[in-house]
Amino acid sequence: MSIPEITQTLLQAKKDQRLSFADLEAILGRDEVWIAALFYRQASASEEEAKLLVEALGLDPSYIQNLTAYPVKGLGPIVPTDPLIYRFYEIMQVYGFPIKEVIQEKFGDGIMSAIDFTLDVEKEADPKGDRVKITMSGKFLPYKKW
Amino acid sequence: MSIPEITQTLLQAKKDQRLSFADLEAILGRDEVWIAALFYRQASASEEEAKLLVEALGLDPSYIQNLTAYPVKGLGPIVPTDPLIYRFYEIMQVYGFPIKEVIQEKFGDGIMSAIDFTLDVEKEADPKGDRVKITMSGKFLPYKKW
Amino acid sequence: MSIPEITQTLLQAKKDQRLSFADLEAILGRDEVWIAALFYRQASASEEEAKLLVEALGLDPSYIQNLTAYPVKGLGPIVPTDPLIYRFYEIMQVYGFPIKEVIQEKFGDGIMSAIDFTLDVEKEADPKGDRVKITMSGKFLPYKKW
Amino acid sequence: MSIPEITQTLLQAKKDQRLSFADLEAILGRDEVWIAALFYRQASASEEEAKLLVEALGLDPSYIQNLTAYPVKGLGPIVPTDPLIYRFYEIMQVYGFPIKEVIQEKFGDGIMSAIDFTLDVEKEADPKGDRVKITMSGKFLPYKKW
Amino acid sequence: MSIPEITQTLLQAKKDQRLSFADLEAILGRDEVWIAALFYRQASASEEEAKLLVEALGLDPSYIQNLTAYPVKGLGPIVPTDPLIYRFYEIMQVYGFPIKEVIQEKFGDGIMSAIDFTLDVEKEADPKGDRVKITMSGKFLPYKKW
Amino acid sequence: MSIPEITQTLLQAKKDQRLSFADLEAILGRDEVWIAALFYRQASASEEEAKLLVEALGLDPSYIQNLTAYPVKGLGPIVPTDPLIYRFYEIMQVYGFPIKEVIQEKFGDGIMSAIDFTLDVEKEADPKGDRVKITMSGKFLPYKKW
Amino acid sequence: MSIPEITQTLLQAKKDQRLSFADLEAILGRDEVWIAALFYRQASASEEEAKLLVEALGLDPSYIQNLTAYPVKGLGPIVPTDPLIYRFYEIMQVYGFPIKEVIQEKFGDGIMSAIDFTLDVEKEADPKGDRVKITMSGKFLPYKKW
Amino acid sequence: MSIPEITQTLLQAKKDQRLSFADLEAILGRDEVWIAALFYRQASASEEEAKLLVEALGLDPSYIQNLTAYPVKGLGPIVPTDPLIYRFYEIMQVYGFPIKEVIQEKFGDGIMSAIDFTLDVEKEADPKGDRVKITMSGKFLPYKKW
Amino acid sequence: MSIPEITQTLLQAKKDQRLSFADLEAILGRDEVWIAALFYRQASASEEEAKLLVEALGLDPSYIQNLTAYPVKGLGPIVPTDPLIYRFYEIMQVYGFPIKEVIQEKFGDGIMSAIDFTLDVEKEADPKGDRVKITMSGKFLPYKKW
Amino acid sequence: MSIPEITQTLLQAKKDQRLSFADLEAILGRDEVWIAALFYRQASASEEEAKLLVEALGLDPSYIQNLTAYPVKGLGPIVPTDPLIYRFYEIMQVYGFPIKEVIQEKFGDGIMSAIDFTLDVEKEADPKGDRVKITMSGKFLPYKKW
Repeated sequence: MSIPEITQTLLQAKKDQRLSFADLEAILGRDEVWIAALFYRQASASEEEAKLLVEALGLDPSYIQNLTAYPVKGLGPIVPTDPLIYRFYEIMQVYGFPIKEVIQEKFGDGIMSAIDFTLDVEKEADPKGDRVKITMSGKFLPYKKW
Repeated sequence: MSIPEITQTLLQAKKDQRLSFADLEAILGRDEVWIAALFYRQASASEEEAKLLVEALGLDPSYIQNLTAYPVKGLGPIVPTDPLIYRFYEIMQVYGFPIKEVIQEKFGDGIMSAIDFTLDVEKEADPKGDRVKITMSGKFLPYKKW
Repeated sequence: MSIPEITQTLLQAKKDQRLSFADLEAILGRDEVWIAALFYRQASASEEEAKLLVEALGLDPSYIQNLTAYPVKGLGPIVPTDPLIYRFYEIMQVYGFPIKEVIQEKFGDGIMSAIDFTLDVEKEADPKGDRVKITMSGKFLPYKKW
Repeated sequence: MSIPEITQTLLQAKKDQRLSFADLEAILGRDEVWIAALFYRQASASEEEAKLLVEALGLDPSYIQNLTAYPVKGLGPIVPTDPLIYRFYEIMQVYGFPIKEVIQEKFGDGIMSAIDFTLDVEKEADPKGDRVKITMSGKFLPYKKW
Repeated sequence: MSIPEITQTLLQAKKDQRLSFADLEAILGRDEVWIAALFYRQASASEEEAKLLVEALGLDPSYIQNLTAYPVKGLGPIVPTDPLIYRFYEIMQVYGFPIKEVIQEKFGDGIMSAIDFTLDVEKEADPKGDRVKITMSGKFLPYKKW
Repeated sequence: MSIPEITQTLLQAKKDQRLSFADLEAILGRDEVWIAALFYRQASASEEEAKLLVEALGLDPSYIQNLTAYPVKGLGPIVPTDPLIYRFYEIMQVYGFPIKEVIQEKFGDGIMSAIDFTLDVEKEADPKGDRVKITMSGKFLPYKKW
Repeated sequence: MSIPEITQTLLQAKKDQRLSFADLEAILGRDEVWIAALFYRQASASEEEAKLLVEALGLDPSYIQNLTAYPVKGLGPIVPTDPLIYRFYEIMQVYGFPIKEVIQEKFGDGIMSAIDFTLDVEKEADPKGDRVKITMSGKFLPYKKW
Repeated sequence: MSIPEITQTLLQAKKDQRLSFADLEAILGRDEVWIAALFYRQASASEEEAKLLVEALGLDPSYIQNLTAYPVKGLGPIVPTDPLIYRFYEIMQVYGFPIKEVIQEKFGDGIMSAIDFTLDVEKEADPKGDRVKITMSGKFLPYKKW
Repeated sequence: MSIPEITQTLLQAKKDQRLSFADLEAILGRDEVWIAALFYRQASASEEEAKLLVEALGLDPSYIQNLTAYPVKGLGPIVPTDPLIYRFYEIMQVYGFPIKEVIQEKFGDGIMSAIDFTLDVEKEADPKGDRVKITMSGKFLPYKKW
Repeated sequence: MSIPEITQTLLQAKKDQRLSFADLEAILGRDEVWIAALFYRQASASEEEAKLLVEALGLDPSYIQNLTAYPVKGLGPIVPTDPLIYRFYEIMQVYGFPIKEVIQEKFGDGIMSAIDFTLDVEKEADPKGDRVKITMSGKFLPYKKW
C-alpha cells in the first residue's frame, strides 16, 4: 500500500510544525481520529475546517479544495498486511459473529452504522503495560420492512 | 457462511431456556460478548465455566469438553457479506490507517493486542435513535528490537 | 450457489399452493420483494408475519421460528455468475462512480442506506418489449463528524 | 481506485464553471446520471453531445474525440471499498436472489438488460431524513431457445 | 467442479437409451447445444419440451418440474481448469479486445447479447484433422442513452 | 485495464487515416479480427505484413519490429468488467459444460484448439435488430495416450 | 484437496493386489503416468483398456464405465499447497518466461501442446542423491493466421 | 505482465548482435534455458559469466552487477494468461497428482527439487509436426524425520 | 477449516489416554512436532512408527495404513484466519525479505529446504512472561547452474 | 514484487561500502536480521540508530528521518512466488496446525507474539551440506477472558 501523496504532504507538514493530532484537535474542534481520517482523505472538511487546518500546517491555501472534496474511501489491500491494521481484521474474523449475536439480542435485526459513527482512541495507563482503548459509537439502524 | 452445529445447539438451548447473554453473564461471571464468542467456538472455557454454562442451558455434560477445547479461530469469508459484520470491515478499510497514525503518535511503533484484549457492546439510549457503543481495550505491544 | 434448503421448501410450498408473490403481498401486507427476501432468509419476520406466511403455504407451525430468526445475510459468490444477478454487479461497476457523483452533488458526503431501504420491482408494458422497473429508496446518511 | 485523468479534468472544469449535473442535463438534453457516466468514460457521446459539453465546460475542442470514443467499461476493485458504492454491492448480495425470483415470476426466464437501460437519481424530501430514490428501467430480455 | 446430480441422472439415462444429442434434437425440435444446456440446468424447458425429453429418456414424470424451473446459471470455477472449457477462457483473454474493436466498428457502442443468443457446434471434416466449428449469433444491443 | 501504448498509437493512426479494419483486411490479406489482434499485440506479423501495415497507417518503419515480435498474450482482468467482453465470459460459464458434452459426443475426448484457430465477426441484418455472428473454427485435438 | 472416491478405490485395489504402476504398464501397454492419470480421472480409457485394468485390480466390471467416461479435468486448488506439486507451479513461475523465449526462438510463435502430449517419470541413480527425470513431449502448434 | 526493463535491454542487444540462445550457450558454457532465465533475472551469474555475456551482447560493463545480484524470483500472474506458459499450469493441474503418485511409488515420501534442478528444451523433428521436448532433472529430496 | 476426521480421532484417543505429545516423543523416538504433523497427516510414518503410535493410542491396527500412506500436504485457507497460525504468515510478510537478504549474504543464491528440515517448539521460562521458542533447521540448497 | 526505492539505495550503499549485515550488527548493536528488516522498512530505528547506520553507509543525513518513521508493514504478494520466501509459506501450510497443537499443549489457549519477537539466522556447518538455522522467540500471549 503506497500512501497517497497528499497524505504524505500533510503528515510532513504536521511533523515540520511539530504538531500532534491532539494539537490539531484543539485547533479544529474535531476529534484527532477524524482529523487523521481527513489526512488520509477518508473524510471531507468544511471550507472553514480546511482553512484552519491548512493555516495550522503552513500549507498553501490551494490545498483547501483537496480537503473539501468528497473522497473515494477505503484504503489498502483486501486483507491488510500491516500488523496494527490486521488486528482489526482479526477482531472482525474472531468476534464478528459474537458481536452480531449480542447486538441483535439488544436491538433486533439491524446494524451499527459506520456512517453516523464516531471512533475515539485513548491511552489507558496500566502497570502491566499501557492499553489502547477504542470506543466506537454508531447509530443502530433497524432493517426497514416494506 | 454456515454456522457450526455446536453453535446452533447452544443458541437453540439458550432460546429454549429463555436466557439472554446478560443472564449468562450473571451466571458465568464473564462478559456477554466473551460468552457469545464461546458459543461460536472462538474462545475456550475452563472446566468450571463450561460446567456452569452446560447446566444453565440444560445440555448434556458431554458438551463440556467441546467448550474447553482450544478452537481453530476465524469465521466467515475473506470479505464478510453480512451487513452488520461488514461494517467492521468497512471501519478497518476507512479508519484503519487513521487509527494507526493516532496510536503510533500516542504509543510509538507497535500494535494493539487482539489477544490481551476485551470488547464490550452497550446500548446507548439516544432520542435521535439508539446507538451501539463498542469498547475495545487491548494491551499496547511495542515492537521489540533485538 | 446452492439454494438453502429452507428456501427450497418455501418455494416448493408456494408452487404447490399456486400462490404468486403478489398473492402473498396481499396476505402479509408486505411487498413481494421483501417476501422473496424472507424466503431467501435475507430478512426476518415478526411472529405474526411468520404465522400468516406459514399458514398460507400450508407448512408446519414449526417453520415459524425459522422465519423470525435474524439471518446471516449475503448470498452467492463474490462475483455472481447468474446472468440476471450479474447485471446488478455490472450496473455497480459501470454506474457506481457516476451515481456517487450525482448523489454527492445533491446530498453532500454520505451514502444511501441499504438498511433503511425499500426496493420494488414492476413490469412496464412497452411495445418494443416489456421493461423491468426497479425502484430503490434509501435514507440518505450524511457522514457524521466528531 | 485512482480516478482517470480525463475524469478529473472534466470534474475540475465543471467545478470551475460552477455547473451542476442538472445544469448540464439542461444543456445536453441528457440525464445527469448519463452525463456523470460520460465524465467517468463509461458512456460515449455523439459528436454533437461532445461539442456541447466541451463548450459548456470551457475545454479545448481536442477533448471532443475523448468523449466520442467507445470506452472500456467497469471501474474500481472487484468488491468496492467506497461505502456509497459498496451499498450497491450489498444490495446485490442481499436482494439479488429475491429480485431474481420476482422478475422470473412476472416475466419468465430471462434478465433485465443493463444496456437497454436507464437509471435516475432523485432526492426525496422526508421529515425523518431525506431519501435517495434510484429508478432503473431495463428491457426484459427473455432467454432465446434455439 | 462436481457435476449436479440431476445432470448425472440425465446423462446416464441418455446413455442407457443410447441416444445422442442429435437424436434428442430430432425429438424436441431444439438444437443439441440447447438440450445439453438443459441437461446442465442452464436453460429451462416448456412443459411440453420437458415431457418429450423425460419420455425419451425413460425417466419418471416427476422429473418434468426439474426441467421447467428457472435455474441459477453459471457453472464451474472462476477460471476453468478443464482444458476444453479453458480454451474459451483463453479466447476471451486473447481475442476479447480485438473482437470488441471489430464489433464496435461495425455496430457502434454496445454489446452482443448472450441472452437473445444461439450457439451451434459442428464437425468440419478436414484432411489435416477435423475441425470444431462454433457459430454464435447474438442480437446487437446498442447502449441506450437517456 | 489500461490499453497498451502501442495499441493506442495504432488505433489513433488508423483513425487519422480513416481506415476501417475491413480496409486493412484488403491491404494485408488477413482477416480483420486477426488484424485487430495484431493491434492489441496478441498476434505477430511477418516482416511483410508489418511493412504493409506500417505503411498503410503512415507510421515510422521503426514500428515494424514491434509488430513482428512474439507477444506475451492475454489481456485484462481475471473476470472482465467490460460488458461486451464479459458476455464471452458468461457464455463460457453458462454454455461451457454443454459445449464440452456436444464436442465430446461428436469427436471423443479432446479439445478445440485455440491456436490452430480462426475467428470471424459478421453483421447479420435482422428486422428485429441486427445480430453479431461469431464463427470460430479450431482444429480438434484428441488426447494422446502413451 | 480431497481425493475423489473412485481414485481412492482404485489406489486401494492396486495396493491390495500389490501391483505397481510399472506392473500395470506391462498389463495395459500404456505408460505408468498415463495410468496414474486414469486413476485420478484425468484421462479416459478405451473399453478394452478399462476391462484390463478392472480385471487386474479385481474390481467389479461395473467400474469399466467410470473409466471410459470423458472426465472434467483439473485437480486441486489454484495454487497447489502440496510441496511436490507446488514445485511444478514454481517451475512455471520461475522458468515459464525463459522457456517461452527458447521455444519461440526454435519454433516461432506458438505453443507446446498439452493434449498431443506425453510425460514420463524416471529414476536416475546418482551418487549424490537419486534424481527425478521428467520428460515431456508435446507437439508444437504454430499460431494460425487467417 | 510487463517484462522488466533489464530483460528488454538484454533481449534487444541479443537481437542487435544477431545471437541465438544457442550461440550464447557456446560462449558461456551454460545451457540456453539457464541463460534465458538469467535474461529474465530468475538466475544469478558469476562475475565471469556476467562479463562474458555483457561482452557478447556489446553492453556497458556496468550491466555486470545487475546480472550477479540475487534476484527476487517468480514472474507473471497467479494463473498465467499467456497460452504457451499456461500449458505448463494446465499440465500441473491435470498431471500433478498422477506425477505425485508415480514419484512416491518410485522414491517414497518427498519431492523433486526445483533448486537442484536442470531443464532442457529440444526440438524433435516429426513428420506429423515437430515436437517440443522438455527434460527436467531434479534431485529427489526425501522428507526428513526428526 | 474443518479438521480431518482422522486427526480428530487421533487427538481424541490421545486425550482419552492422557498422553502428551512429549509422552509420544518418548514412545516413538520422534520429535513432538513431527508427531503432531503425523496427526494432521502432513507426514508419513514407517510401519513400525505407525504400530507404536496406534498401540499407544489404543486404536485399531487398521489405522496403521492411514498413517503410512503418503499424504497430500497443506492445510487451511490461503491466508490463515486462526491468530496463532496467522502470526507465522505475518512473520513471512514482515521478515521474509529481510531473511532472504541475510541468508543470501551468508550462503549465496539458494534456499533453506522445507523438506530436509526439522522444527522444534520449546517453552522458555521468562519472568516477564514465558516465551515460545521455535527452532528451524533446513539444509541450504544452492541454485544449480547447468 | 518491486523492491522499494529506499531499500535499493540502502542495499547499494552497503555494497559500495563493502559492509556485511554482520558488520552493521557490530556497528549498531542490533541483530543483522533486525537491520535487514530496517533496510526493507519493516522496522523503525531510533534517532541514534539511524544516525549510526546513515554514517556507516555514507548516506546523506536526510535519510535519518526515513529510517525513524513508523512504516506500513508487509511486503510482497498474498502467496509469495520467490522460492526462498515461499518455503516459509509452505512451512506455515504444512506445520501450522501441528505447531498450534504443540504450543497449546505446552502453554494453553493463546499465541506466540510476532511483535514481542526476535528472529535469528545462523549458518550451521554440516558435512552433508550446510544448514540454515532460524531461531524465533516470541512472548506467549494467553487469551484474556473478560
